[in-house]
Amino acid sequence: MRIALDAMGGDHAPAATVHGAVWAARDFGLAIQLVGQPEAIEAELAKHKTDGLELSIIPASEVIEMDEHPAAAVKNKKDSSMAVALRSVKEGRSDAFVTAGNSGGALAAALFGLGRIKGIKRPALSTVFPSNSKQGFCFLLDVGANTNVRPEYLLQFALMGYHYAQQVLNIPNPRVGLLSTGEEEDKGSQLTKEVRPLLEESELNFIGNVEGKDIPAGLADVIVTDGFTGNVYLKGAEGVAWMIQTILEREIKARPLALLGAVLARGAFKALRTQLDYREFGGGPLLGVNGVVVVAHGRSDPYAIRNAIRVAKQATEKDIVTVIENGLRSLPIPEPVPGK
Amino acid sequence: MRIALDAMGGDHAPAATVHGAVWAARDFGLAIQLVGQPEAIEAELAKHKTDGLELSIIPASEVIEMDEHPAAAVKNKKDSSMAVALRSVKEGRSDAFVTAGNSGGALAAALFGLGRIKGIKRPALSTVFPSNSKQGFCFLLDVGANTNVRPEYLLQFALMGYHYAQQVLNIPNPRVGLLSTGEEEDKGSQLTKEVRPLLEESELNFIGNVEGKDIPAGLADVIVTDGFTGNVYLKGAEGVAWMIQTILEREIKARPLALLGAVLARGAFKALRTQLDYREFGGGPLLGVNGVVVVAHGRSDPYAIRNAIRVAKQATEKDIVTVIENGLRSLPIPEPVPGK
Repeated sequence: MRIALDAMGGDHAPAATVHGAVWAARDFGLAIQLVGQPEAIEAELAKHKTDGLELSIIPASEVIEMDEHPAAAVKNKKDSSMAVALRSVKEGRSDAFVTAGNSGGALAAALFGLGRIKGIKRPALSTVFPSNSKQGFCFLLDVGANTNVRPEYLLQFALMGYHYAQQVLNIPNPRVGLLSTGEEEDKGSQLTKEVRPLLEESELNFIGNVEGKDIPAGLADVIVTDGFTGNVYLKGAEGVAWMIQTILEREIKARPLALLGAVLARGAFKALRTQLDYREFGGGPLLGVNGVVVVAHGRSDPYAIRNAIRVAKQATEKDIVTVIENGLRSLPIPEPVPGK
Repeated sequence: MRIALDAMGGDHAPAATVHGAVWAARDFGLAIQLVGQPEAIEAELAKHKTDGLELSIIPASEVIEMDEHPAAAVKNKKDSSMAVALRSVKEGRSDAFVTAGNSGGALAAALFGLGRIKGIKRPALSTVFPSNSKQGFCFLLDVGANTNVRPEYLLQFALMGYHYAQQVLNIPNPRVGLLSTGEEEDKGSQLTKEVRPLLEESELNFIGNVEGKDIPAGLADVIVTDGFTGNVYLKGAEGVAWMIQTILEREIKARPLALLGAVLARGAFKALRTQLDYREFGGGPLLGVNGVVVVAHGRSDPYAIRNAIRVAKQATEKDIVTVIENGLRSLPIPEPVPGK
């Protein structure tokens, strides 16, 4: 299996990306294609032991910067690492694409380079999110690809999420929840009120509306929302976790006895950090495009890159494009009822 | 000052509400009017020392239940504790109203009983949210009153939040942020893109878009959003804090040494809990209605009720209705630009 990695994407590229690629090549026995500026990549590779690892370079002269306007960048930079990598996937020279770069750019480049799965109206950016469920996490989408959506998009997000959770995350019959402001039918926005009957009529395992607090509580395995709400939610969770850590550190440092206590409780703190660490999950697939694309956090360090490559490996092994195509065929997608 | 408290509202009413009222009457020297079923209130009052406290009962025979449909409940239950309390405010027999009951019911009852401040299109439910800012918190609105909004509503939320933060929360020139998916102008939903120029043209101290993680980070003092996003955000934060606590407790209990450490670090944990505790803030004002209405968490215990009454006291002392009226007069509200 050959994974094309955007060596230039992310806040810590190419150091973190190349390091993560070396790590993944060793741990998973994969062929990693480092896509980007050869000199920069070679300089990083020289810092690692790479004997016996399947690492190659696919040259790309341009980089889509983190703050660039996605559509314009994709249009103007035909030789960007993203565009080159996605052409390699499209032409069958790579099996999957992983990037920690500009996520809007990744979406635009993937749509341009691979197109959508036939029948899918909009791809969705997804993520694994820690929760108190049996498996210790849930699957949340869309977290940012679509900030303006229609009810039928959310229905398709649910379908894609259901099949991904079942096939790749090994959750037997994932419970699908719709993120809203209350469990009652009359709670929520116009959008959620229109989506809900579509989900109820579908053959997905829809359990109804879930609230913001129900996600960490583990009430659902797949949580469907629009990309605006999902993005705000995800970053909010990150911010709250950061705040709790910051306050606790400050309060511990202010108390000598607490400082000693924290040393004794080190193992518990470490276990907590591991369970909440986004790096463990590496990245989330961009579902609905015609190929395997995994988008990692812009802040990704080598470990996060390694794990994002693992996600791409799993998604490729399970052939998520075919999984979603079959899902679309087997589950009726009701047409939205106007005004309902 | 006379505060009308919905003695029947909340998961733990009337025990928690009556207890909180006794506490507030003692600590703040206020006259508290307990509105609800006299026998139930008297039975609770008998459990407390109330000598010398200004506690009275305003009889109301009905209760709007937590899961009732708000509009229908307000329409059908003319003698509910909420309706009776709001009539008392309207007629000048009470200075403010506090409830931990059905928040949709409180909104509907307040709109029906008090109406809106002239010029305000929609009231907004607000809350104080802990953050890393100078004052240790920010002010977030709307957190649930309006799940479908127009750009001009959000502009008014910003105005109300700005003046409340300045006058009641004592933040000199509050920085106003618009909750979105990225700081760049092209990030966000159709709604945020339409709101942004209105905020830029206003004389509010608008600092631009803020992301979910920027709220706990303390980047803004007043954060404006629609009631759907705000509600999901707020409950999500609650859920994440709960999850972190749950995991940490589990991991500590699994390690004898960590358990000892936790005992030593007790003071730090307690300080953290205090800083994050929603009960410290008590409740958030429903801004934009023609009177002082404070909505507390449905789960409120006596301490939360006590503090919600304190919020009502402060809002009454500062005369928030006049503050908002003056704000509306002094700040030009530009008309939304169609299609922008």
